Amino acid sequence: MSRRLLGLDVGGTGIKAALLDGEGRVLRRARWATAELGIARESILPALESRLLGMLAREAITVGDLGGLGLACPGLVDADTGRLHDAPNLRHWEGLDIGPWLADRFRCPVALDNDVNALAYGEWRLGAGRGTRDMVCLALGTGVGGGLILDGKIYRGWRGLGAELGHLSIDRHGRRCACGNRGCLEAYAGAWALSATARRALARRAPGHRALARLLAGQPPTPAALSRAAAGGSALARELWAEAGCALGVALAGLVNIFAPERIVIAGGLSRAGRLLMEPACQEARRRLMNPDVQRLDLRRRALGDDGAAIGAALQAGEERP
Amino acid sequence: MSRRLLGLDVGGTGIKAALLDGEGRVLRRARWATAELGIARESILPALESRLLGMLAREAITVGDLGGLGLACPGLVDADTGRLHDAPNLRHWEGLDIGPWLADRFRCPVALDNDVNALAYGEWRLGAGRGTRDMVCLALGTGVGGGLILDGKIYRGWRGLGAELGHLSIDRHGRRCACGNRGCLEAYAGAWALSATARRALARRAPGHRALARLLAGQPPTPAALSRAAAGGSALARELWAEAGCALGVALAGLVNIFAPERIVIAGGLSRAGRLLMEPACQEARRRLMNPDVQRLDLRRRALGDDGAAIGAALQAGEERP
Repeated sequence: MSRRLLGLDVGGTGIKAALLDGEGRVLRRARWATAELGIARESILPALESRLLGMLAREAITVGDLGGLGLACPGLVDADTGRLHDAPNLRHWEGLDIGPWLADRFRCPVALDNDVNALAYGEWRLGAGRGTRDMVCLALGTGVGGGLILDGKIYRGWRGLGAELGHLSIDRHGRRCACGNRGCLEAYAGAWALSATARRALARRAPGHRALARLLAGQPPTPAALSRAAAGGSALARELWAEAGCALGVALAGLVNIFAPERIVIAGGLSRAGRLLMEPACQEARRRLMNPDVQRLDLRRRALGDDGAAIGAALQAGEERP
Repeated sequence: MSRRLLGLDVGGTGIKAALLDGEGRVLRRARWATAELGIARESILPALESRLLGMLAREAITVGDLGGLGLACPGLVDADTGRLHDAPNLRHWEGLDIGPWLADRFRCPVALDNDVNALAYGEWRLGAGRGTRDMVCLALGTGVGGGLILDGKIYRGWRGLGAELGHLSIDRHGRRCACGNRGCLEAYAGAWALSATARRALARRAPGHRALARLLAGQPPTPAALSRAAAGGSALARELWAEAGCALGVALAGLVNIFAPERIVIAGGLSRAGRLLMEPACQEARRRLMNPDVQRLDLRRRALGDDGAAIGAALQAGEERP
């Protein structure tokens, strides 16, 4: 029996876990609130351990059957020390010896990586990027993250600071981004930006605001709510999605000119919007390519759903030498 | 005696050749007008051969001493067939069997590559990018070309269409670029764009136009003329350079966010402007970086002068298996 792999995607609010068999099939999934593990530095890792052991037990798997344990974390990960640093959404995890601690407890190779790297790796190995050599991944979540698989490897750049594709400026005079720059993709095509744009459109009574407000029925204009409103007939909701898609399209043309990737995978919660987002993005990108008949724009939505980063982390751990 | 390497940089107007010894030292340089070789398809390669043989003879080197011959060409190069295709500035060379023909005549490995790839490789191996693993090269010539050394290798992307860094849009509502997109770096920081901007400034009698016109003394506002005018005290010329530098800076911030390269090398004729261009570029980039204290912005001008692509092509040929 080939050995199991366990992957974790640790976020500011939730932790997703995926247990894989030797062929990469997901045997079991789990979800925990990050807060469940507490914020006291000495309690976090033991609390995590007991949950993981519980998960293994439910599949009648012992620690000895585990071939690797992967962690995907937000922020910067030091692959050498197995520590997380500079993770604004996971401050109380910073500096914990996660890697060495888990390796000791689970007696298997442990891989730590940035969550979008892990996601890109997961989609590349088993999802929407399968079979490609050069793949660009955009994770449209609250912000916009990026992952690069170049020449069949995760590209990280100097000190792992690369692949910040959400902070590619598409408009140097455009919207201020939280990062200090102007016109970043994230300021147009992240959930936070989309909701803020929707709120502004409602506040300034943009055409169609009444219909949209009625469909929102007092709920905040989250991406999910805006998708439902668009499906329910709100022209303004469609337009807001098209605006985000257009901005995405400008960035896509740039990424094709820079990388000429075999495929671009769109992941993150906003990818659920489907054609509402992807069609305007694709149109705008084609309009802007140097030679749309020759250049390759192979755009796909993620295939691993919300588990991409956990699955990718598990697979990365499987690659580690024991 | 380790074997010599010969490199050629074939452009629309001129051909540069560099003969290297085994340590990469340039033994001899040569320049020919591309038109000298004629435009008849059957004459081009024999005419090139006789010039190269003459160059070897002057160093008392026989064909048998040659360890490799590299060609850097504009446009797309098919490394497999050794042919050039889609080279707007070198139409009558398209489809010629350059690679196989030269390999047969000079009985050594022949390497063909795009000129900016060869330039990036030359600067990386022996010039301003020496010792780095990830390096981005921008060639600011008539247009703006790009070369990427990632993980110690030239990055080409699907069918060699990648690294078109000059067509990264920094302003989606900005200037129309010849490629069809808007706001491309090339539309602000290439020689053609800079001269066009200068002409427009003179035509609309921008502040300082008189002093600039006087310093130009009837000459067209080429980058070289604008550098001299700036040195001669023209505030408008300085401002035109600063504008180009600013646009470059926006792109640099994007490239640092995307690649986190160890170094960025600025090559091409416009790099001669030195601080006129580099200072505003650097300032603008720093203003736009997510974290200028942590991110690395190591900007250098080219070190191999106009011979970078010829030297790079020679070195690439030296890497080929005989």
